[in-house]
Parts: sequence; C-alpha cells; structure tokens
Amino acid sequence: MKRYKGIVAYDGSGFSGYQIQPNGRTVQEELEKALGKMHKGAEVSIVASGRTDAGVHAKGQVIHFDSTLQLPSERWVKALNGLLPGDISLMQVDSVSSDFHARFDASGKTYKYVVYTGSVRDPFKRHYAAHHPYKLDIEKVKKASECLIGTHDYTSFCSAKTDMDNKVRTVSKISIEQKDDEIVFTFTGNGFLYNMVRIMVGTMLDVGTGKIEVESIPAILAGRDRTLAGKTAPAEGLYLWEVYY
Amino acid sequence: MKRYKGIVAYDGSGFSGYQIQPNGRTVQEELEKALGKMHKGAEVSIVASGRTDAGVHAKGQVIHFDSTLQLPSERWVKALNGLLPGDISLMQVDSVSSDFHARFDASGKTYKYVVYTGSVRDPFKRHYAAHHPYKLDIEKVKKASECLIGTHDYTSFCSAKTDMDNKVRTVSKISIEQKDDEIVFTFTGNGFLYNMVRIMVGTMLDVGTGKIEVESIPAILAGRDRTLAGKTAPAEGLYLWEVYY
Repeated sequence: MKRYKGIVAYDGSGFSGYQIQPNGRTVQEELEKALGKMHKGAEVSIVASGRTDAGVHAKGQVIHFDSTLQLPSERWVKALNGLLPGDISLMQVDSVSSDFHARFDASGKTYKYVVYTGSVRDPFKRHYAAHHPYKLDIEKVKKASECLIGTHDYTSFCSAKTDMDNKVRTVSKISIEQKDDEIVFTFTGNGFLYNMVRIMVGTMLDVGTGKIEVESIPAILAGRDRTLAGKTAPAEGLYLWEVYY
Repeated sequence: MKRYKGIVAYDGSGFSGYQIQPNGRTVQEELEKALGKMHKGAEVSIVASGRTDAGVHAKGQVIHFDSTLQLPSERWVKALNGLLPGDISLMQVDSVSSDFHARFDASGKTYKYVVYTGSVRDPFKRHYAAHHPYKLDIEKVKKASECLIGTHDYTSFCSAKTDMDNKVRTVSKISIEQKDDEIVFTFTGNGFLYNMVRIMVGTMLDVGTGKIEVESIPAILAGRDRTLAGKTAPAEGLYLWEVYY
C-alpha cells in the first residue's frame, strides 16, 4: 500500500457539496467511483482537507488515499481525469509518507471570494461570482477587513448550526482587489469555521453599503453571537484556493 | 409600434444554438418567450445579427424587435432579465428608427476565440475555452494570422455545407494575446462565413504545432477547398463579441 496526496479542482455548481450524502451528486462520490474503477471495483476511500458546501468551488482541494498501485504523478492524473466527469479534475497526485493526513495535517488554507458588482447580471458569472449590484464604499470594506484579521473567537462569523467547541481561529491575511466590475477577497488563516468566509464577506459588504458601521466590527466579534454579523454571502462566489501543510 | 435594438449576452453551453429549431433549447425561443410574457401573450418576433451554433457564446449579440410598449432602457433590461433564464441576459435595450435591421444593417463583427493550453484540463474552462494541451509555436501562429487578414475568397475556411455564393469577405484585424495558459484570438471583419472563425483558429493551431506550414496558407486560400484548411476548432471557445452598425 502506498499513500497518495491529490490536488483536486472542481466546479461546484453541479454538486450538492463535497461530502457523500443520501441525495444529490457529490465530489467525494465521483472521486471514489473513479478510483474504484482504477482498482477493478475495490473500494478506495478518500479523505479531504475539509468539506465544501453545495455550489462552492475548489481550485486546490487536497485529498489523500491509499492504493496498491504505484504510478507516477502524470499517469495518475491522466487515468483519473479519463474516468472523472468534466467538472472535476485531478491537477496533481504525489506519493507521500504513509502518515500524511489531508485533514489533520492541514496547517492553513486560502479561500477566495469573487463579487461581481456590475449593474446588469452577467450570464458567464452566475455560477462563479456573487452578484452585488449596489453602491459600495470599497475603503470601508477594506477597513472592515482589517478588523477581522487576527486571532479571535469567530463565533459571530460561524453558522449557528456548528457544534465545534473552540471557535478561536487566526486569520493572517485578508486582501481585497477591485478590477473592473469584480472584487476578489483573499483569506488566509490556520482554519475557518463553517460558513465563516461567507459570513465575513456578507458582513464586509454590509459595511460597504452602510448597513453596518466599521466601528461596530470589534463589538460584533466580542458579542460571540451569529445574529450580530451580516448575512451569509452566497455559495457561488467561494473558492477553496489552497491548503497548506 | 416602436422598434428596439437589444444587446444580448448568453452562455451558449446550455443551448442547441441561437435559432429556433424543432428539438433543443434555443436562445431565440427563450427571448421570444420572455417578450411574449411582457406583451400579455402576444407573439413578438425578434431578428438577430446572425445565428450562433450550439455551445457558442455571445457577449454582444444584437437583436431587434417591434413593440407597442414604450419603456426606457433600464426598465426593458430589468423586466426582460426578470423573465429570462440565468444563462441569457439583456445588457441594453434602446429605441431605434423603424427601419433599423439587426442583420442587414450590420457592417461588421468582432469574435473572440479562447484557447486553454494548460497540460491538465481545467473544470472551470470546459465550457468556455478550447483545450489544446500541445506544444505550440506562437510566433508561427501569429505569422499565419497575418496571411489570413485582408480581402479574400474564404471558401477554404467555410463549412462545405454553406450554400452562400459569394464567399469573399474582408478580415480587417486578427490579434493574438497570450497570457498565462490562455491564448485569446480576436477577429474583426465585415462578415464571417459559417464556421469561418473556428476553421481559421483550427488552421492556425495546426500551423503552431507544425502540421501545416505557414507558407502554405496563401495556397490554401487560393485553392477554395475546405479540405485544404485545418480542422474546425470546437464551439466552446467561440464568443460573438460585438456587432457594428
């Protein structure tokens, strides 16, 4: 048995999310199906760095799996992509030490979130950016982002459904680039809670439109209450960009 | 009755093409359905600058239609986009003189063609660029493009199925931009024959990979025979970008 680490990109618009579930097409299911075919029907389980929700994309999701096959990277990539549907692609497969774990060994992640600000909807962006055709003060958005960087208890920026106890995370970087009618947010941190990036984006957009004051961000963080923060920005703007080990 | 000119963008990946046909979803059908709803079920016919094939995209298709309604541009755009599916969008609607004709008055068009040259397939580009993961001499491609500019009989670069008599057209500009793992071709001319852009791209790519010599392009043009040129590049890379009047 050899352990392999794979980097996976997927267009989330046709999936009910990453993780296998009773109803709906999932990324994990498609990956395990393709691996099963390569192993003559034998079940091959994969472990990912984390889940992504329905409609959320990945450019650099990381998985690991064990296999009796010994193939070089390009052969794995070619064989798996030949078996996978067009909306998932293995970008790289490397042999790693047998104790590598895609989830537990992840030391950090980068997510991107794309917002389209054009006044008329764009058919090419409907699955790949959140449409926000409202007047926005980008300087206020940037100030809000500075308040969100650091080591904080992010309970207010986490879906109330989460049952994880420790909600302290470190967000080391939030960058915001505006180009033409797009705003791209980049978040890097040691870990992100459920819906955390989407709630941070929703809150920053609310600051940009004047619904929330920049000055209230520290109080929102300190309040540890999901209802204090802004709305959850939609799934289609979110990309799991890179996972660090 | 007032005549209106509309600029339409559509993601061609979910359509069997622009023009209404017995089987399959078409752009024209969706537009006429939405206009019908705005006119209490009365049929409103639209005329486009030209057809696009299944899978071909448009950023600036132009249509005209006549209506008893008198609305300002933003109201038309808002009302129609509220009735249209997400993969079509009216970008602009303007009142024009009653003899304006989207097809007969068009004096020229710009098309873009996007080629993705990365070695591993990209799920985000599968519907929006042609995948060409082969070694390419971009200088040769550019030289080939220079031979295709001008006023020529483009019979060799036109689907053999076309029954149009006059195949002389003027291509005034072909520009080629390479950025990271994408090559974007931009074509401007007074008119394009059926499949002409896709055959020009296919031929230029064949020059880039060495299958066709740059020096043979003039003879391919002079031969007026479709079988002399390269293959027809796939639909998903093609965008009707702008129509001039």
